[in-house]
Amino acid sequence: MKNDKGSDSNTKYPLSEEELRLIDAYWRACNYLAVGMIYLQDNVLLTKPLEAAHIKNRLLGHWGASPGLAFMYLHINRLINKYDLNAIFLAGPGHGAPGVLGPVYLEGTYSEVYPDISQDAEGMKRFFKQFSFPGGIGSHCTPELPGSIHEGGELGYSVSHAFGAAFDNPDLIVTVAVGDGEAETGPLATSWHSSKFLNPIRDGAVLPILHLNGYKINNPTLLSRIPHDELEKLFQGYGWKPYFVEGDDPATMHQQMAHTMEQCIQDIRLHQQQARASGIAQRVIWPMIILRSPKGWTGPKEVDGNKVEGFWRAHQVPLPNVRKNQTHLKMLESWLQSYRPQELFDENGQLVSELQALIPQGERRMSANRHANGGLLKRNLRMPDFKNYAAIVEQPAKTQAMNTKPLGAMLRDIMRINQTNFRVFGPDENSSNKLDAIYEVSKKLWLADYLPEDNDGGQLSPDGRVLEMLSEHTLEGWFEGYVLTGRHGFFATYEAFVHVIDSMFNQHAKWLAISEALTWRAPIASINLLITSTVWRQDHNGFTHQDPGFLDLVVNKSPQVTRIYLPPDVNCLLSTADHCLRSQNDINVIVCDKQSHMQYLNMDDAIKHCTKGLGIWSWASNDQGTEPDVVMVGCGDIPTKEALAATALLRNEFPDLKIRFINVVDLFRMTPETEHPHGLSDYDFDSLFTMNKPIIFNFHGYPWLIHRLAYRRTNHNNLHVRGYIEKGNINTPLELAIENRIDRFSLAIDVINRVPRLKVSGAHAKQMFRDRQIECQHYAHEHGVDLPEVDNWVWPYD
Amino acid sequence: MKNDKGSDSNTKYPLSEEELRLIDAYWRACNYLAVGMIYLQDNVLLTKPLEAAHIKNRLLGHWGASPGLAFMYLHINRLINKYDLNAIFLAGPGHGAPGVLGPVYLEGTYSEVYPDISQDAEGMKRFFKQFSFPGGIGSHCTPELPGSIHEGGELGYSVSHAFGAAFDNPDLIVTVAVGDGEAETGPLATSWHSSKFLNPIRDGAVLPILHLNGYKINNPTLLSRIPHDELEKLFQGYGWKPYFVEGDDPATMHQQMAHTMEQCIQDIRLHQQQARASGIAQRVIWPMIILRSPKGWTGPKEVDGNKVEGFWRAHQVPLPNVRKNQTHLKMLESWLQSYRPQELFDENGQLVSELQALIPQGERRMSANRHANGGLLKRNLRMPDFKNYAAIVEQPAKTQAMNTKPLGAMLRDIMRINQTNFRVFGPDENSSNKLDAIYEVSKKLWLADYLPEDNDGGQLSPDGRVLEMLSEHTLEGWFEGYVLTGRHGFFATYEAFVHVIDSMFNQHAKWLAISEALTWRAPIASINLLITSTVWRQDHNGFTHQDPGFLDLVVNKSPQVTRIYLPPDVNCLLSTADHCLRSQNDINVIVCDKQSHMQYLNMDDAIKHCTKGLGIWSWASNDQGTEPDVVMVGCGDIPTKEALAATALLRNEFPDLKIRFINVVDLFRMTPETEHPHGLSDYDFDSLFTMNKPIIFNFHGYPWLIHRLAYRRTNHNNLHVRGYIEKGNINTPLELAIENRIDRFSLAIDVINRVPRLKVSGAHAKQMFRDRQIECQHYAHEHGVDLPEVDNWVWPYD
Repeated sequence: MKNDKGSDSNTKYPLSEEELRLIDAYWRACNYLAVGMIYLQDNVLLTKPLEAAHIKNRLLGHWGASPGLAFMYLHINRLINKYDLNAIFLAGPGHGAPGVLGPVYLEGTYSEVYPDISQDAEGMKRFFKQFSFPGGIGSHCTPELPGSIHEGGELGYSVSHAFGAAFDNPDLIVTVAVGDGEAETGPLATSWHSSKFLNPIRDGAVLPILHLNGYKINNPTLLSRIPHDELEKLFQGYGWKPYFVEGDDPATMHQQMAHTMEQCIQDIRLHQQQARASGIAQRVIWPMIILRSPKGWTGPKEVDGNKVEGFWRAHQVPLPNVRKNQTHLKMLESWLQSYRPQELFDENGQLVSELQALIPQGERRMSANRHANGGLLKRNLRMPDFKNYAAIVEQPAKTQAMNTKPLGAMLRDIMRINQTNFRVFGPDENSSNKLDAIYEVSKKLWLADYLPEDNDGGQLSPDGRVLEMLSEHTLEGWFEGYVLTGRHGFFATYEAFVHVIDSMFNQHAKWLAISEALTWRAPIASINLLITSTVWRQDHNGFTHQDPGFLDLVVNKSPQVTRIYLPPDVNCLLSTADHCLRSQNDINVIVCDKQSHMQYLNMDDAIKHCTKGLGIWSWASNDQGTEPDVVMVGCGDIPTKEALAATALLRNEFPDLKIRFINVVDLFRMTPETEHPHGLSDYDFDSLFTMNKPIIFNFHGYPWLIHRLAYRRTNHNNLHVRGYIEKGNINTPLELAIENRIDRFSLAIDVINRVPRLKVSGAHAKQMFRDRQIECQHYAHEHGVDLPEVDNWVWPYD
Repeated sequence: MKNDKGSDSNTKYPLSEEELRLIDAYWRACNYLAVGMIYLQDNVLLTKPLEAAHIKNRLLGHWGASPGLAFMYLHINRLINKYDLNAIFLAGPGHGAPGVLGPVYLEGTYSEVYPDISQDAEGMKRFFKQFSFPGGIGSHCTPELPGSIHEGGELGYSVSHAFGAAFDNPDLIVTVAVGDGEAETGPLATSWHSSKFLNPIRDGAVLPILHLNGYKINNPTLLSRIPHDELEKLFQGYGWKPYFVEGDDPATMHQQMAHTMEQCIQDIRLHQQQARASGIAQRVIWPMIILRSPKGWTGPKEVDGNKVEGFWRAHQVPLPNVRKNQTHLKMLESWLQSYRPQELFDENGQLVSELQALIPQGERRMSANRHANGGLLKRNLRMPDFKNYAAIVEQPAKTQAMNTKPLGAMLRDIMRINQTNFRVFGPDENSSNKLDAIYEVSKKLWLADYLPEDNDGGQLSPDGRVLEMLSEHTLEGWFEGYVLTGRHGFFATYEAFVHVIDSMFNQHAKWLAISEALTWRAPIASINLLITSTVWRQDHNGFTHQDPGFLDLVVNKSPQVTRIYLPPDVNCLLSTADHCLRSQNDINVIVCDKQSHMQYLNMDDAIKHCTKGLGIWSWASNDQGTEPDVVMVGCGDIPTKEALAATALLRNEFPDLKIRFINVVDLFRMTPETEHPHGLSDYDFDSLFTMNKPIIFNFHGYPWLIHRLAYRRTNHNNLHVRGYIEKGNINTPLELAIENRIDRFSLAIDVINRVPRLKVSGAHAKQMFRDRQIECQHYAHEHGVDLPEVDNWVWPYD
């Protein structure tokens, strides 16, 4: 496969003999390091015969995908050098980390970040030993790995992360290795459509390399076992132009890969130039590569009579028994020697200079590219004054407003003044969620076909910056990729279906928790999740749309990165959103319904209240200066309204009953300060919630969450929580509240049952409240709506 | 579009004029009902001019997909009649329920199940009113709808459910409408690959109809806006043969659809006949239909100057303001009259007889097909005696065994004797999870290409009954479809990634909770989920693979359907699995690690212990007949081992310390009996856990879950729970335990801190335990493994 004419990007053999020799040598160095980190704890340059003592006690790590990943990495490097590309690399098959760790170490970034892992024999020894070793680093592309923005521990998100990185980075090429195992997951399968959301003028490019490595742990992969024609059509159908690189002979494969990579870069540049010259953004059929190479490429062909290279047995540690089996040990030695390390590293363990010359310079190294340490590039959002969007609230609980609508106006103005580093994401629900003011500034990105009627109230534009697709997975992946590369965003979604991305939340929270401890990783913008269309307003969607349990998931993750807010009205939501959009390294979960709701606080009070995170609403309390008989708590918009209505009912019946009313916005205030940075001290908690009076806590979510947060509090035994208890179907709002006992009548009865002196005297009131519940239900079943006076309820005290 | 020659399935116009007239009339009847149920509460046959009083107070429901769904439904009916097909129908776009409710009502099944919804004017009125009405039924294909096994409230699972229904039902044709909104979700996008797992001899057929309805709530759909060629290639690439039916003229569309449906049925039969005649099961390129029709087809074309039919505005209620706007009211009346109801229903509201003749007979009606009420078809699993697989345990805590391995043998034998109604599902991890004995009886189904090396230790077969694909979504969808149609199964998956299907769990739990209340729905087999490769053994996977939080999700759902078990050893796992596989209408979550672990109970004791669900292990306790100083609890395999080791340490140091040891298998025993059917009475709880002694509870999952379950218990204030607290990376097992303080040393220190008389005297022991922790960590970081004597720990008391 010689090329006598030297390098020529337009031939199928672009590498000269010398180039081929060097690139292959560089690859051998990467593969040597990959094997080394799986096996060796000593004798890392093989300067003496390999002995059992040089082998780690426990062999962990994944060889299978590693050589293929290194192969991609260095071929991207070649073009970075040739064209001065600005590129990063995401490894979807996270378990192939040795194939990425090797190149990153070789290009020196690893040693810059971790000086003790130096580029010499001693450093290499530490580099090897720490891999998949207690106290060391994991076997994925974890946050500890410079250049990584994608760990790949859980599979499915590499392509959506890559697109998130490419948005609004016109100069950037995001290369992404997609494992053929990962490609079977749902999130990955739909994320190929992301290319329909990439604007060739404003955005960078994504170059996916689907790695047909052939096998998962024990099985072939689907995509590696369908006919070539089907595979090609699949990706053409997804809207890509697939190029194939297939084989196992290294020399041939280097030529093919070099040729194909060139072709892809040329395609990308051509599309970008055309769009940018014309100023017309249209959908592009972008190139992608399908790389079919053997699993465990260049590793042992056969072990104990079983096929290994090119088979699933190459997935993890091909020679598992090296410490005890002398034959295996010899095979390992031959395998390592097959890379001819003495040609690759000098006696000090430094990469030889002819190979050093292949390494991109400075921040062109993918491991040192600032986009992969996005916090370095992050600029603070320019923020309008959120007070400008305030709802006018002259008296508490007298007026109604749609809570999310002013937030839409605020997001619109944020978008207006942050046109290159702010995005809003949503699964086709931003209008439904009343955030549609944003379209005044930026429409929904749409690059697929248009029809004439799209002008009729449509909000589509090829220049739009709002991203909507009916895949919460893809949206969350884009959002994560976007913030990981230093930008900002906002994601609004239906409460019940935020569970679709439970596992993505888990993984990002883990990424952030680890990243926070790495001083060299600059903080990134927070993930801001508005959970709306909540459980309490599913009048026509019913039971399937009722699930406030995402919060139960959030509280399990590191308190360093988790925040939960339940603003009860417009002004609290605005203040909360302003805080969240300025925060960093957090996942902010804001729960607020989109429908019209009672308003309580004017802006000044809302700011004070949200700053405290919880507090007594004195206008709704009558315990001034004394110990109350009961503490009534509202947490969440609808529960707060019902709790207030309950106090109104009670005060009509029992004027001398002393009620303290508390609203909780910042949920983690419920937990001790030792457990969460937002936790409230026991002293403050006790003074708010009393030491021994009944607390009736009306909560937005599943009631047990409050016990989980507050079980250590002094007055926990008197804490009675109401919340959603999985009772629901097609109900009016009040009927649903009654079914789950968060309604005003149930709460009033709760108080009567728990304040000793009312237990007897309150019998009549209890019966009256029960009658009202039945009346509400009858009215709903007769008329399909709530009792009018219930809908229009206002706080009766001034 | 006439067909003068009468019906001929081989022409493009197979419907005779008369057939066309009738099928269109039937469709009009369906559409009339759909509009009626959205709008009308009276005057349901339009026997007088329409007035505001006839309109519901609140207009809820989704018109957009309804006419298209009804269109599909009746064209399937036509072929059921023609070929005596055994078919069911799944509506992916659940919100188009009016388009399914109509046909189901017309074929009489609705009235059979709900006699008050009779087939007359009065019944029709009740049918209309109950739709999306408080106290009535939801706007999806909820469990209340006869013939439904797929609600479609959350999108993404229609195709995988359909395949689950088709497996092992060779005679069945599962038709499934797939919304183009739903088609954007990840789970749906990968579920098209399910066709590669359908054996044409043994399984039935799935006929998907992708409904290019064009729009979601406010946006076009991606698949409706890509070139025809791309769309065709996409589905060819997925491995299907797509047929297109496109247009809006009803007569033309009826002919096209009839022709295409015929073609598809012929294709299906041909493939099945070929495979069945030859006895050779090969992958089939199955037919599918892409139906492009206007959203809100036959509805108002324009409202207030805005396009409605064929646009996103047709999504929900096209005329929203009918009660107040006289023009809209008139438009609604014209719309309803456009279906010419007087031709369709007689004066009593009965479908005219010429249309009744189009209805399939008896159980051929898709709404009355037993496969859609799978409990009717369910046969109990034939079960081997689980005691046959017992681990020999002569003394507790002396021997080790892999907990899941004997379960693999048991599953193998269950598979052996249930070859047509039992399946095992897993994401490429059954070998990794030590369940591979099952392959002795049934290999992994594989119908895609084979390579020679597949014979080398491979477990693939076109006849395999074990289904493995790297998509938890698809697996869970298959499993649900399989049990919903009356069969049984078992799904093993990695603990951390069971979160991928959180939302599917939620939706199935809701389906079951509603179904249980419907006496006409026969109980179905439980979903059995083995959660393995647990948080405590992620030695090489690290932090991303550590998440025991699925249980926190499970406990939020209805206690009627949720069960959680944490068997500590082989025999308890076998006993638990036997119980679960015999149960019905539950979701059983079994948590048990796959690695080698200490064994505690012989089979007799295990059965007794699992039957109680929790209990004192007297061999590990020294409080016989007295009140203990402390109660030590283990829940989960590894936490139990560490808790036992802690008691051993303590008894060495403090021989007179009275420790009661409790193990919990059935997690819901922790909750009061009023909260869950498995809840323990307070009396029993108090006698086990004491009224006032410290309880050290070592838990498998996040510790707060135990407080959530037990916060009402008498002795809750003395309950100290240890569990996973998000501390982890690459750790040895003991080191990970130490990080999270579930290790023996931390627990022993906990006891010293909480038993008053030890607080002073125990200072030396505390220091010793702390030193041991540090030693463990040093050893791990030095050698990569745990201290050998810790790994080989055995219970020292007999």
